[in-house]
Amino acid sequence: MKLIIDRAALLKPLAHVQSVVEKRNTIPILSNVLLRAEGDMLSLTATDMDIDVVESVGAEVSRPGATTAPAHTLYDIVRKLPEGTQIELAEESGSNRLTVRAGRSTFSLSTLSTEEFPALSGGELPYNFVLQAGEVKSLIDRTRFAISTEETRYYLNGIYIHATNSSGVPVMRAVATDGHRLARVEMPLPDGAAGMPGVIVPRKAVGELRKLVEDAEGEISVSLSETKLRFGFGDIMLTTKLIDGTFPDYERVIPAGNDKTLQVSRKDFADAVDRVATISTEKSRAVKLSLQNGALILSATSPENGTAIEELEVSYSASPIEIGFNSRYLLDITAQIEGDEAQFTLADAASPTIVRDQSDESALYVLMPMRV
Amino acid sequence: MKLIIDRAALLKPLAHVQSVVEKRNTIPILSNVLLRAEGDMLSLTATDMDIDVVESVGAEVSRPGATTAPAHTLYDIVRKLPEGTQIELAEESGSNRLTVRAGRSTFSLSTLSTEEFPALSGGELPYNFVLQAGEVKSLIDRTRFAISTEETRYYLNGIYIHATNSSGVPVMRAVATDGHRLARVEMPLPDGAAGMPGVIVPRKAVGELRKLVEDAEGEISVSLSETKLRFGFGDIMLTTKLIDGTFPDYERVIPAGNDKTLQVSRKDFADAVDRVATISTEKSRAVKLSLQNGALILSATSPENGTAIEELEVSYSASPIEIGFNSRYLLDITAQIEGDEAQFTLADAASPTIVRDQSDESALYVLMPMRV
Repeated sequence: MKLIIDRAALLKPLAHVQSVVEKRNTIPILSNVLLRAEGDMLSLTATDMDIDVVESVGAEVSRPGATTAPAHTLYDIVRKLPEGTQIELAEESGSNRLTVRAGRSTFSLSTLSTEEFPALSGGELPYNFVLQAGEVKSLIDRTRFAISTEETRYYLNGIYIHATNSSGVPVMRAVATDGHRLARVEMPLPDGAAGMPGVIVPRKAVGELRKLVEDAEGEISVSLSETKLRFGFGDIMLTTKLIDGTFPDYERVIPAGNDKTLQVSRKDFADAVDRVATISTEKSRAVKLSLQNGALILSATSPENGTAIEELEVSYSASPIEIGFNSRYLLDITAQIEGDEAQFTLADAASPTIVRDQSDESALYVLMPMRV
Repeated sequence: MKLIIDRAALLKPLAHVQSVVEKRNTIPILSNVLLRAEGDMLSLTATDMDIDVVESVGAEVSRPGATTAPAHTLYDIVRKLPEGTQIELAEESGSNRLTVRAGRSTFSLSTLSTEEFPALSGGELPYNFVLQAGEVKSLIDRTRFAISTEETRYYLNGIYIHATNSSGVPVMRAVATDGHRLARVEMPLPDGAAGMPGVIVPRKAVGELRKLVEDAEGEISVSLSETKLRFGFGDIMLTTKLIDGTFPDYERVIPAGNDKTLQVSRKDFADAVDRVATISTEKSRAVKLSLQNGALILSATSPENGTAIEELEVSYSASPIEIGFNSRYLLDITAQIEGDEAQFTLADAASPTIVRDQSDESALYVLMPMRV
């Protein structure tokens, strides 16, 4: 293999694919990036056995071939080279060394055979549809904070994506929950997604996808089977295994009979929660909401720190209620509400509360109260 | 005590003094800030028993008095209040509660008696002189990176400041070393500093002072005795205990007979060291410098990663030499050189090397080589 490529052209795909590679690996090949030069393209692949990312970029290939080299080291080298540098990548066959030449620098990196490199691809992906980059961003941002981190509940360690009906309209839904809060976002079902299986996308894949989407615009092609999911955007392709488990029947925890409605300025509410929570102990982070006609009183008490109390004018006309929440969870949700007004629908101090963006029907959050 | 003060006016001194307060304290009073309202001023004091910081700010005092309240909590509250808010601080005598009122928020914080608050002040400080804020900044920045972190060598855990003669001219010197590298900076001895004892300023005080100097301009008054050092700037006063130990005779480790001189572009050198060091193992971080007529070859080898080599054109005409250094230490020093050119004076591969800023005589760095 031998090729010449601009630093900037190589840096971008390297940054993308090396992100999947774990810092510590017991299997040496998993520290490496697969480099394959063919025609006038260089393709880069990295994997952690659960996710793989492949990206292609134009290069001046003078000798086609393939090898694998340490991903983080190669990335650091390219990152530290001056802007505008031309980089030569070359491996003499049988040398087990990748030579990186740029300006007056020469690096020689140990390589491993491409045959050792695990292939995640393969297998049919019968469901195919297209999403907009903005839709994927929004699905992720409004649900990922609620993903569980409890390893024993592995089936909650991701975002559940499935096709269903909402008031008779076919929709695609993304749901995440850790048992204390639940986030549900929906959008019209894209063409080709009808009949797709419900899939749980693991946390790490969600994070990698989110990073790739950040740079992306326009359409993203999605393909999936019951065990794998693939996102393709331009020259980049991310494939991930899915969590092999059953997502719980989340509909059961979304209350239907909550009859007390609170409407409050999202910003005023978030600021007040943040201030009052200064007093909460770090462990509980509890904040009490006391609602009565037209007024919300937020308060917190801690034996060590003292007390905090703040009053907000709100729209509320149901019977008075006192209810406690984890302030961190309240702030996670309000951070995802884009409209000016948040709407709370409550039943009583022991039952789950629903939070919505007043101006946006597509997202719904459920929050379990805590005793205060 | 009762007073009204602007959020911005209170936030700044609170930010300064709370920084000294440790996150975890076994002695409760050390978590608190001392608030004293008198005339039309509020003074704030925080201490960790080794350092205290006192700052005064104008306030509308309607009832003079003093109390102590949790420093970090009070700081967080004030920080989270909206800009432009007027804050009322009040303590009814005997209530053991500080009430913080602003807009529609009310906080009530537990207080502790001012009598429990430790006084660090007191004792004479017979030596008094003035430094410019820029001078203090420069003394700290060019030496602090070399402070030792080994607790057993407590006498190296700070910057040694003393008065001496340099080529017959009276100077003030700041020196720090961890045994692997040494940084020495000097400036003309200020009026009033003649005869001052050599003092070791502890690392934490150096850090707090550096933060305060960042906001400061103009003159800083310095007072000291053998056990205490005080910096006064405007409404702020930082007092610190000094390390009770003897700084080693550092002059002995500064070689006088090094006869090989290397001159190199600081930026080119730093960039090349950074790139080549990508290959060094994280443990050793070793980089080899090979010098011969007009050329410097930097290289690194690691059994896992491979090799790196880079060549620089330099000014060097002495006999060839190969010498190894910790790349991190090289970068720490080059980061403090402000001129375009760095000058190295070497003897052999086993002896300390001197590094200087070609355009600035006031700083000198000594670096121990490592075997490569």
